[in-house]
Amino acid sequence: MTVGIVGAGQLGRMLALAGYPLGLDFRFLDREAHSPGGQVAPIFCGEFGDRRLLTRLARECEVLTVDWENVPVNALRAVRGATRIAPPLRALAIAQDRLAEKHLFQKLKIATTRFARVDSARSLERAIEAIGFPGVLKTRRLGYDGKGQRVVRTRAAARSAFDALQGAPLIYEEFVRFDFEASVIGARSTRGERACYPLNANVHKDGILRVTRAPIGSSGLAQRARAHLYAILDYFRYVGVLTIEFFVRDGRLIANEIAPRVHNSGHWTIEGAETSQFENHLRAILGWPLGSTRARGHAAMVNLIGQMPDARLALGQAGVHWHDYGKSPRPGRKLGHCTLVEATALKRDGRARSLLASLGLDTGVRLPRLP
Amino acid sequence: MTVGIVGAGQLGRMLALAGYPLGLDFRFLDREAHSPGGQVAPIFCGEFGDRRLLTRLARECEVLTVDWENVPVNALRAVRGATRIAPPLRALAIAQDRLAEKHLFQKLKIATTRFARVDSARSLERAIEAIGFPGVLKTRRLGYDGKGQRVVRTRAAARSAFDALQGAPLIYEEFVRFDFEASVIGARSTRGERACYPLNANVHKDGILRVTRAPIGSSGLAQRARAHLYAILDYFRYVGVLTIEFFVRDGRLIANEIAPRVHNSGHWTIEGAETSQFENHLRAILGWPLGSTRARGHAAMVNLIGQMPDARLALGQAGVHWHDYGKSPRPGRKLGHCTLVEATALKRDGRARSLLASLGLDTGVRLPRLP
Repeated sequence: MTVGIVGAGQLGRMLALAGYPLGLDFRFLDREAHSPGGQVAPIFCGEFGDRRLLTRLARECEVLTVDWENVPVNALRAVRGATRIAPPLRALAIAQDRLAEKHLFQKLKIATTRFARVDSARSLERAIEAIGFPGVLKTRRLGYDGKGQRVVRTRAAARSAFDALQGAPLIYEEFVRFDFEASVIGARSTRGERACYPLNANVHKDGILRVTRAPIGSSGLAQRARAHLYAILDYFRYVGVLTIEFFVRDGRLIANEIAPRVHNSGHWTIEGAETSQFENHLRAILGWPLGSTRARGHAAMVNLIGQMPDARLALGQAGVHWHDYGKSPRPGRKLGHCTLVEATALKRDGRARSLLASLGLDTGVRLPRLP
Repeated sequence: MTVGIVGAGQLGRMLALAGYPLGLDFRFLDREAHSPGGQVAPIFCGEFGDRRLLTRLARECEVLTVDWENVPVNALRAVRGATRIAPPLRALAIAQDRLAEKHLFQKLKIATTRFARVDSARSLERAIEAIGFPGVLKTRRLGYDGKGQRVVRTRAAARSAFDALQGAPLIYEEFVRFDFEASVIGARSTRGERACYPLNANVHKDGILRVTRAPIGSSGLAQRARAHLYAILDYFRYVGVLTIEFFVRDGRLIANEIAPRVHNSGHWTIEGAETSQFENHLRAILGWPLGSTRARGHAAMVNLIGQMPDARLALGQAGVHWHDYGKSPRPGRKLGHCTLVEATALKRDGRARSLLASLGLDTGVRLPRLP
């Protein structure tokens, strides 16, 4: 059985590596022949919106999925006759637009940041009046890893950010002072079966995820996050893995965005959960029973960004697992990650700090205490 | 960094799947383009002894290894100038010959079955006189999964087995009535670092491994097995993973054979140990620190032979992991395996029995009580 994946980045690559043991075969579509997925399965090389290539891919595959949420939805819609596509295109479309995402949260009664649509200098003024400073001016589309957004604290900064973002559709959001960031990951299968992983605590720096720890101890938070996740999965009659990112303040979850795919904050599930998010995405889109999402202990995942450290530095530390995506180095680029799993959260945090220090990744990366 | 693997069977495939996260790249040499490894890395297609192909493979690789012990040693010897080869060819040569293996056990004072070399009808008579009935007449070379061996209980049966084995160099061994079978798997790296997995208990049927359970509770047995393993690793200044198979009777280990490679009885380490045998083989041949061989719980591995059951039957059982090698069905052929890990040996045994029954694999497969 062949699975087609639009996008051959590290997420696609890890999907394929999780899928071979299930007896699956893979084909990618990506702009770059040397993408991480290309080492492990054939790539059709071209634009994500190339209908001829998408049709060819669709015809060779039992099911088509994505490793990136910004795939042109119209192009995918055009090949719906040729194969089954998961996740649903409606979920992709909403996840591509921060404003639509906010409306979804409101509709499902999931607390989110205060926000306002910004299409003009005048609507920016109105947004600032309603929400105040500090705030974040973001492009509605194509933002990731902190790209396409600016924190602003004055009218002058807001206007200069508005000018820099060059007339793209924007959204102005309140800047949330959070205790920590969290994300919840779960899956829904074609048969309607649902599963949810333990809650992740995430640390970002310069807008890029640096460290994820899971599970978070607070069962109350985890239960509320799961309820939100299931509400969204059910709303879309979703198929596959989906992620919600939250700010957590005073024990409250404030939804920030959704990702209709496997997620960087779920990489710990490869070693730290009974079944990885990658395997569960495949099980979900094939209509197979979902695997247990139980944590095997207390995991920490550390992203390797810009430049790969010497693998031996990490592998010399007992129980550290290494994931090199086979990408060429570039500042700010996610090149790999490593994971450790410990018996207690306390041990895990200690070892995560040592690991960060040993790889020279601890500057400006602080692991807050978790509930 | 590219690793060349001579043989692209399921072992080679699982080596590659374990190696991609380490940032490695792979090339195979195999007779069949549609071998299991071919889905996950390029295959050079030809005979294992083809020196032109071996040279090409060697030149493209930092290190050359094998997924099958019966690779022609002379052909490998001829390409030693072009790359590094692991395991050592001397270990391969001895593992290819049951008589040499027995002499190795004797030299290292590892108890083994009584045996005699058989090259003629007359030496067969002498062997029977010395060892008696029942016994096992085996080819010295190229036996696996019970092929090339016959249990004999009478002189007439022995003569007919001798005739059937058609003049190949043979060995006659005492037939050991064992309590159970066991194997020990470990690794030695280019830097001399050694590691050993917990002891495996194996159940065969028709000469083919059906079920492995690990760890065995008896720490005495495990310590003695590890001492034997380390003696052999040190003797060869071995590099890579090596396996010893034993009969266990009245708490004694009786060595049967060695395999100079990752082993079917170690497949449980993918989910059941901190680091899999596949990853540790790669770490060992690259001179990287070896990973922890600690068991994550109590694992059972069930081989899928001749025909693949419906994956959903297994995946519907919580915590069961599926491994399909992508081979076409054929009676007696190893097509895949599945693994479960439980908190206690008792729970594991119960669930392994249910799993066997649910897949229709329980006929004639009995799981003996383990010490």
